[in-house]
Amino acid sequence: MQALWLENGELNYKDDVELPICRSHEALVRVLLAGICATDVQLLKGYYPFTGILGHEFVGEVIQAPLKPEWIGRRVVGEINMSCGECIQCHALRPTHCHRRQVLGIKQHHGAFAEYLTLPLKNLFCVPESVSNNQAVLTEPLAAALEIQNQYHVKPTNKVLIIGAGRLGQLIAQTLVLTGCDLQVVARYPKQQQLLQKQAIDWILESEIYAQHYDLVVEATGSEAGLHTAINAVRPQGTIILKSTYKGETTVNFSHIVVNEIQLIGSRCGSFMPALHLLAQQKVQPELLIDTQYRLQQGIEAFAAAQQKGMMKVLLTP
Amino acid sequence: MQALWLENGELNYKDDVELPICRSHEALVRVLLAGICATDVQLLKGYYPFTGILGHEFVGEVIQAPLKPEWIGRRVVGEINMSCGECIQCHALRPTHCHRRQVLGIKQHHGAFAEYLTLPLKNLFCVPESVSNNQAVLTEPLAAALEIQNQYHVKPTNKVLIIGAGRLGQLIAQTLVLTGCDLQVVARYPKQQQLLQKQAIDWILESEIYAQHYDLVVEATGSEAGLHTAINAVRPQGTIILKSTYKGETTVNFSHIVVNEIQLIGSRCGSFMPALHLLAQQKVQPELLIDTQYRLQQGIEAFAAAQQKGMMKVLLTP
Repeated sequence: MQALWLENGELNYKDDVELPICRSHEALVRVLLAGICATDVQLLKGYYPFTGILGHEFVGEVIQAPLKPEWIGRRVVGEINMSCGECIQCHALRPTHCHRRQVLGIKQHHGAFAEYLTLPLKNLFCVPESVSNNQAVLTEPLAAALEIQNQYHVKPTNKVLIIGAGRLGQLIAQTLVLTGCDLQVVARYPKQQQLLQKQAIDWILESEIYAQHYDLVVEATGSEAGLHTAINAVRPQGTIILKSTYKGETTVNFSHIVVNEIQLIGSRCGSFMPALHLLAQQKVQPELLIDTQYRLQQGIEAFAAAQQKGMMKVLLTP
Repeated sequence: MQALWLENGELNYKDDVELPICRSHEALVRVLLAGICATDVQLLKGYYPFTGILGHEFVGEVIQAPLKPEWIGRRVVGEINMSCGECIQCHALRPTHCHRRQVLGIKQHHGAFAEYLTLPLKNLFCVPESVSNNQAVLTEPLAAALEIQNQYHVKPTNKVLIIGAGRLGQLIAQTLVLTGCDLQVVARYPKQQQLLQKQAIDWILESEIYAQHYDLVVEATGSEAGLHTAINAVRPQGTIILKSTYKGETTVNFSHIVVNEIQLIGSRCGSFMPALHLLAQQKVQPELLIDTQYRLQQGIEAFAAAQQKGMMKVLLTP
């Protein structure tokens, strides 16, 4: 089959990759659409050593399901973390933190930039009919955006700042604006600003951020500079949600964190169910983020496009 | 009057310091006992530029109280943050984070290593009769220890680790053990270990810490090394309470924080009332920490003693 293969930091299109083997507890899924995410770009840059097929945002159709043949033909999205079910994290009901977890297109499991992928049946969710492929392909990052509200009670009275109006920042903005909070989004590029404006979401420039002002600051720039901006923006006893993963370490004055009693919360993946609920009710419009779509053969070109400044979502289709 | 005076990073005993002027909303307090805290040592090292009389842990007796003469003769302890009552933080009921706050012996207000000090009447709390001076002098750090339970709901089912068994670490241990949680304290020095043992609190060496194991880790070493130990010890989706303030910056892999969804919470001062309640009920024994007591004249010697490895509490008396 065709696939985008990462090896030693180099991404290549291949048309002779073997079809993944569907084990009994898994389903074989034909990929309909896949999305390029900041994590994919970071993997290319060596954030985590991965060899194989990249990609973890997808919508597909079940082709094989040995244990549950009734799933064949269903349109699905999939939770990307595959847990062992046996370690201390799994027993503590934190399967996304399973010590032996494999992660679709990120860790020890081939991903979605291919014609086919496999996932355990328990990881799959049926896509409601009212949800388009262009929406469903963004279920995973939408779930990651909603994880914030799982970790922090966002109140209508809260002043909230999102730093970064890229792919994830936009989805976070779409979900947080539903809470009725006083929301501002730091948007650097005209395209990001226009997209927010279209949705009546207030955007500002970095120079317009109030110091020590916001109850909640979400750092979603994908780089380390955002953290320092967040620390300056949050009020005493306020909270910063950290969404960016990147290679390397960051230097911070932790006495400032202590004296101002600031909370920092790392935030990664979220549950698919609430994301699908919002999509089914058309409460969010992740499809507004989609800029362009490439075939797998043009994968290298697609990755170049995804890294352009101000570029939103680039999709891949087999 | 006599006082320990800090100027340009140098501490000196003086016997000709002018008595502080008691303004109408304040009380003049005769210091009965004062305690040397890690913050005092950090101030000596230049953590924050302060000139004047050091000291913020004290118990004293009200000598003057222009607006409330009925307070004269009362034995008191005092909240160390003096808020303006007018700024956005004060209006938001965060007076300890007042933008214009003065802090007893730390910022723009002379402290307790003297014969007399002044504090606003609203900052003072009467010491219950059942509480000794040796207990009352530790109300402020005890309140700081209790702040943890104001920020995090410590449950009996929680595995909790305190890193650092110095002055603050010991007080935190005394308060956290009351929750019934599964508590371990990393104690480096025999004296720290013996003190914990005496109270039937479980202590371990740093080499015995389980990785990614604890629901809650309290970092109270007073140095940056503790933070890295805490990050390794906390479980995924666990919480680290940061208590240490020190000069300089610390380098951290924030992607690890994000991927493991770790929470970091800065924690500073706490409320005096619950601390006095615990003391009145004899639920905690902060007086076990007291090693030795010096006169103000021997202040320099007292500071040298307070910085000895494994030394607990050093008190000063005028």
